[in-house]
Amino acid sequence: MKRTLFPLFGLLAASISANELHSPDGGISLQYDTDESGSLHYELAFQDQTIIDASMLGFEVRIDGEAKNLSEGFEILKVVEGQSDETWTPVWGEESEIRNHYTEQLVSLQQKDSGIQMNLRFRLFDEGLGFRYEFPEQENLGHFVVTDELTEFAMTADHTAFWIPGDYDSQEYDYTESRLTEISSKFDDAYSDNASQTSFSKTGVQTALMLKTDTGLYLNLHEAALIDYPAMHLNLDPDYLVFEAWLTPNAVGDMAYMQAPAHTPWRTIMVSDDARDILASRMTYNLNEPCKIEDTSWIKPMKYIGVWWEMITGKSSWAYTDEPASIKIGETDYTQLKRSDRHAANTDHVKMYIDYAAKHGFDGVLVEGWNIGWEDWFGHEKDYVFDFVTPYPDFDVVSLNEYASENGVELIMHHETSGSTRNYERHMDAAYSFMKQHGYNAVKSGYVGNILPKGEYHYSQSIVNHYQYAVEKAADYEIMVNAHEAVRPTGIARTYPNLIGNESARGTEFQAFGGSRVHHVTILPFTRLIGGPMDYTPGVFEMDISKLNPENDSHVNSTLANQLGLYVVFYSPLHMAADLPENYDRFLDAFQFIKDVPMEWSKTVYLEAEPGRYITTARNEKGTENWWIGNVNGADARTAELNLDFLVPGKTYTATLYRDAEDAHYLDNPQAYEIEMLEVTSKSTLKIQSAPGGGFAIGIVAD
Amino acid sequence: MKRTLFPLFGLLAASISANELHSPDGGISLQYDTDESGSLHYELAFQDQTIIDASMLGFEVRIDGEAKNLSEGFEILKVVEGQSDETWTPVWGEESEIRNHYTEQLVSLQQKDSGIQMNLRFRLFDEGLGFRYEFPEQENLGHFVVTDELTEFAMTADHTAFWIPGDYDSQEYDYTESRLTEISSKFDDAYSDNASQTSFSKTGVQTALMLKTDTGLYLNLHEAALIDYPAMHLNLDPDYLVFEAWLTPNAVGDMAYMQAPAHTPWRTIMVSDDARDILASRMTYNLNEPCKIEDTSWIKPMKYIGVWWEMITGKSSWAYTDEPASIKIGETDYTQLKRSDRHAANTDHVKMYIDYAAKHGFDGVLVEGWNIGWEDWFGHEKDYVFDFVTPYPDFDVVSLNEYASENGVELIMHHETSGSTRNYERHMDAAYSFMKQHGYNAVKSGYVGNILPKGEYHYSQSIVNHYQYAVEKAADYEIMVNAHEAVRPTGIARTYPNLIGNESARGTEFQAFGGSRVHHVTILPFTRLIGGPMDYTPGVFEMDISKLNPENDSHVNSTLANQLGLYVVFYSPLHMAADLPENYDRFLDAFQFIKDVPMEWSKTVYLEAEPGRYITTARNEKGTENWWIGNVNGADARTAELNLDFLVPGKTYTATLYRDAEDAHYLDNPQAYEIEMLEVTSKSTLKIQSAPGGGFAIGIVAD
Repeated sequence: MKRTLFPLFGLLAASISANELHSPDGGISLQYDTDESGSLHYELAFQDQTIIDASMLGFEVRIDGEAKNLSEGFEILKVVEGQSDETWTPVWGEESEIRNHYTEQLVSLQQKDSGIQMNLRFRLFDEGLGFRYEFPEQENLGHFVVTDELTEFAMTADHTAFWIPGDYDSQEYDYTESRLTEISSKFDDAYSDNASQTSFSKTGVQTALMLKTDTGLYLNLHEAALIDYPAMHLNLDPDYLVFEAWLTPNAVGDMAYMQAPAHTPWRTIMVSDDARDILASRMTYNLNEPCKIEDTSWIKPMKYIGVWWEMITGKSSWAYTDEPASIKIGETDYTQLKRSDRHAANTDHVKMYIDYAAKHGFDGVLVEGWNIGWEDWFGHEKDYVFDFVTPYPDFDVVSLNEYASENGVELIMHHETSGSTRNYERHMDAAYSFMKQHGYNAVKSGYVGNILPKGEYHYSQSIVNHYQYAVEKAADYEIMVNAHEAVRPTGIARTYPNLIGNESARGTEFQAFGGSRVHHVTILPFTRLIGGPMDYTPGVFEMDISKLNPENDSHVNSTLANQLGLYVVFYSPLHMAADLPENYDRFLDAFQFIKDVPMEWSKTVYLEAEPGRYITTARNEKGTENWWIGNVNGADARTAELNLDFLVPGKTYTATLYRDAEDAHYLDNPQAYEIEMLEVTSKSTLKIQSAPGGGFAIGIVAD
Repeated sequence: MKRTLFPLFGLLAASISANELHSPDGGISLQYDTDESGSLHYELAFQDQTIIDASMLGFEVRIDGEAKNLSEGFEILKVVEGQSDETWTPVWGEESEIRNHYTEQLVSLQQKDSGIQMNLRFRLFDEGLGFRYEFPEQENLGHFVVTDELTEFAMTADHTAFWIPGDYDSQEYDYTESRLTEISSKFDDAYSDNASQTSFSKTGVQTALMLKTDTGLYLNLHEAALIDYPAMHLNLDPDYLVFEAWLTPNAVGDMAYMQAPAHTPWRTIMVSDDARDILASRMTYNLNEPCKIEDTSWIKPMKYIGVWWEMITGKSSWAYTDEPASIKIGETDYTQLKRSDRHAANTDHVKMYIDYAAKHGFDGVLVEGWNIGWEDWFGHEKDYVFDFVTPYPDFDVVSLNEYASENGVELIMHHETSGSTRNYERHMDAAYSFMKQHGYNAVKSGYVGNILPKGEYHYSQSIVNHYQYAVEKAADYEIMVNAHEAVRPTGIARTYPNLIGNESARGTEFQAFGGSRVHHVTILPFTRLIGGPMDYTPGVFEMDISKLNPENDSHVNSTLANQLGLYVVFYSPLHMAADLPENYDRFLDAFQFIKDVPMEWSKTVYLEAEPGRYITTARNEKGTENWWIGNVNGADARTAELNLDFLVPGKTYTATLYRDAEDAHYLDNPQAYEIEMLEVTSKSTLKIQSAPGGGFAIGIVAD
């Protein structure tokens, strides 16, 4: 595409005030207009610095079989100004109240030749812009097909980006830090193998995309409220440094089936000269609808352990039998198969986990591999792969849930779908009913492998719709959902807070699959976590995976103290302690932090943050004056200087500090940590060194 | 493809007896073998006349991502002979007992290089061959993907075929009678428009395919027990006159996902020198599994009228409002829309139909257009198109079902899916529950328009699986299913007799869409009805559709007497009287036949049959000595000569004869009929003339 757009600022800004919008604090300015051909474009500035150059808006669509360009020939009919400053109370989150403060313009547009009305709704927050397309009810537009979204995000310079490869099926990639112009040359290196993956361009990247300008600004591009629309990726035009929206297609190459009145998700651009503001932004949640679940009393944060890491590392197996088996649900007689000693989800072993959870105060125990079908569950395009209700012969679902209940622990259900979405929907009511019947209140669902129906992708409209269907139906059953390999979240948990977690990124499991880059955990809060919590499954204490499984030489690229820091840095209402009980027993003093760290917060302060380098976060424990601090550090050793002025003045606290030992290093000395207790007040400052791949965790308890 | 096969007969027949199988009466002989390259082929003869020349067998598959040819390199390991001669009792059907009489060979094959085992199971009945591929449980084959089925049906000469165009989405075509070599030149003319259609080859045709040789043999190619596999079409290689199996692909071009142990549907070849034997064959049912529904007492044949023909003709509408509307289920407030007087499914109008059904002894009243969503239901790839449980404001579902019940009539539910299969499955439990709650025991389902998920076809494996899912789930609810636009039946109703009907062909509705060819009804029993009953919706008395709707100038290409004959010639446990009550009231004497004709039979005798020309069928009314005869005639006037020797000797009967008047003609004098009563015995013969497009119907009641 030849770019023929001219910058709006300068040309138009002075003369046309209606096409300008400023954030509540005046720091961000939006300009938008139509040019002589009626094409729409917008531009964004932060503190008089242009951050989005003149960028196109619009669509290519198909209406009654005819192609139609909805990016030109428009005129602005009307602009309605609006604003909001309200607070709302999340069911769970990083603070007990969230402020939703923005200015708004609803721009009514009409295409001259077709008469089609399309509106643009711009919302400016102090930390960024959200905008979406709206198609009001009208005579000139009913059903239509989006064949391309033309939204652009024109970069002003060759910024540094923290990116993962654009892919229709997976977000489980390590981040690459590079200049925009280097994306294509680094793409192949960045594109690691996955069970299901479909790239579309060597300059394609995923959102949330974190950027840093040479002028010291932090930008973040993402979307909010992705409902019944394909996930948006970004494709860079390297000649012009313009990101174009790149939607996930369906089996026939269409992007979205729409019906007016309708709107797209919000396209979001965050900006600040302080990286901490990106972490502190609640723009993404604010752009979602308020909670639609009336009674949310059953939605509760959970800290859990599980029968999981032993399978991930290859020490144990999900499958009941290790012998080659081609299983048919409802036909295979498992009593005729030789049980494997490696089958972890057996009654005795799970009871041991329940005991361990009860002893150490965990809320839940996840058990994977409990239900029949795991022998050939993956890679076979197998439609009827699981039924979600039939336990293996050695898993006594009734007695285990009774035993858990007696011990004050809840079992967490696991529904691996193998990507067979129709099969999951066919069994969903029965599966959720089975859960409620047996005392399960939360489910971890999974979508490993290629999607069925064939031709659909993990992030295409129809499958995005499936994940939403599962969450809404779960809400009907009062079930919490933690969906893995589903589309990355976009703040939908505001509306459906039973969506307590997602994976949708490269989680800790990859530390057992060859390891993740050291900077990974310093980037995820700027990217994946923008849209909602991640079930990252931290807490791995044994970094040498060969000690669990001699055939697995993977190394966890993290110090033990870094693992502790994650519990505070990565906000989630659902946190696992992923490692084996036997490994926790070796480090019970460090394990104490995982046991102690709370799951509910009333306030969060971001003390330090630089993507790819470090993040230090402090959170106020709900209903107390206690504070908890976490730090994760990148590849270079670094000393954090923390000012504890968020503590209550005049009050004394006992701080327990879990930190890297001086000689700690993620590679060769990851388990070297020190625990220190000291008295602190709001006047205290702390200097704490984090090792390469290190971190620290602090519990500050009011005396 | 270059054909290099040599005929087996002569070369091999004398020497290798193990590779030969004869039908119970010896009339049909099968030969099969592997050649020097280990390729499989078979040959079929009837009374020493070769009817299938040496034809290839096998597949192209993909195993663990690798392409593999499963048509060569095989050796025969073992042949196990078998036979059966049993009778079984159908829940409904053309006779009260069905004989299942065949010889069998199960041929165990192994591919030398791969070790893969594949079996061929041949069953020879007196009227034809059924064979299928079986993949036994084995170490060398678990999951695999069929990318092509290579089965051939090599014709011995340029036969006459009665064919409809091969299509992945529709069977709603008029039949073309032509030589095989003429198919490609006549294809475009044969390919009429449909709401959803996807052709694949100008020499592609559908099964059941009816053929006639110049030597006077009748052949029929079809399949039986199509379960979890794509529907098979046939593609002619015109150079060699070889039909190749042509499966319906999915969105990515794969045909079938299989998992050993597995088998294909049966491929069937019927042959006789008497066309009546094709109609009399129960081979297709016999090749299906016995009934899997334990208590079948709730499955009952039904004669019904309905709020339907008035919409088909355009006199009334399915939609509640005629104003342009873009409807969203759950969002649109119908009370805000202007009700159209054309909305037929309103309480008063339906009550009139209930009254009419009660007065004339019909079992049921179908009502279409009762539920919200019809305003924009079609052609928009609309996922959430219907919810199947919300009536329009003017349809009082509770009072109407009470009213029907008080009058001894059942309302028949209608579920149009618009091809949105996921949406139907999501609502299926609620929809079936709603039916049972309100007293509905039967549902007519519909699949008009393109299939969702996009890329799937009406006849691809995944969607074939959907229809089966709907039937099996309906059985759980004790609901009878009559599925329109679903895949054509293949005898599955033996196993699930709650599948009481299908459309899956060009039904009577096309008489209001421009008309069907006159010979149509003389071919359907040889093709579409081979696999199961059709809800053909006969009984149209007013052939000039403009009398119902001045804007519709369609003409019904049939005489009134032909319409009556259909009730006997077309076996179905579900027959509609499709026309409007007001039209029946004009011809109450002819209507009497529709009222009288029974729906259950204990015996059937095919008196005369010639595809494309005429069929005359006599059936014994269950539990009585009464017989009912129907005739449908093609384009040329013809006199039937009927010998009534099937009547009980010595008994006298009163026959009521409904026949074309002398000057009747489907085009310009279709309503000219005569009714005659006469005494008959088993020694009587009748000569009855049928007009062009005419027919007759006779009720023979024992005195």
